[in-house]
Amino acid sequence: MEVLTDQEIDGLLAKLPEWKREDHHGQHGIARTFTTGNFLAGLGFVTRVAVLAEAANHHPDIVLRYPRVTVFLTTHDAGGLTQKDFDLAGQIDRLGA
Amino acid sequence: MEVLTDQEIDGLLAKLPEWKREDHHGQHGIARTFTTGNFLAGLGFVTRVAVLAEAANHHPDIVLRYPRVTVFLTTHDAGGLTQKDFDLAGQIDRLGA
Repeated sequence: MEVLTDQEIDGLLAKLPEWKREDHHGQHGIARTFTTGNFLAGLGFVTRVAVLAEAANHHPDIVLRYPRVTVFLTTHDAGGLTQKDFDLAGQIDRLGA
Repeated sequence: MEVLTDQEIDGLLAKLPEWKREDHHGQHGIARTFTTGNFLAGLGFVTRVAVLAEAANHHPDIVLRYPRVTVFLTTHDAGGLTQKDFDLAGQIDRLGA
């Protein structure tokens, strides 16, 4: 997986308007925060994201901070954002929250 | 629930040596990071912490960041650390990871 260029990232983000660029632990990625209602609903959402992530063998950081869940995507092996991040972001968006 | 004094916090932390004071989103709390093995083991640990938290009606921030899970405890209503945080920290320690 190759790291995407800034221009490629901007093009992909145009189709995923809820996701924003974010640096996290020194690596560039994209993040989205979902409002999930009560704490157990948040846990359920974390679980649904994690199941998608495991299926894709691509593991985002997930923060459960009631009443919100934040997902941060990057491709550690590549050192930045790749197509895998945007594929998983699209799948997560289709989950709803 | 009253906010604990610095001296009280130090006394309680002496019994929970894996937990460290940490400020997070502008509020004083305590945090511990667990190494959990693979991603689904991490998800399982998040779930176990969340079930304890829900039972205590006291909801920490939980960060799943493979291969680690970090738990941050504070009492939002009180504006700092209370006995509830240390009670839940002790329960989480007894879970193992």
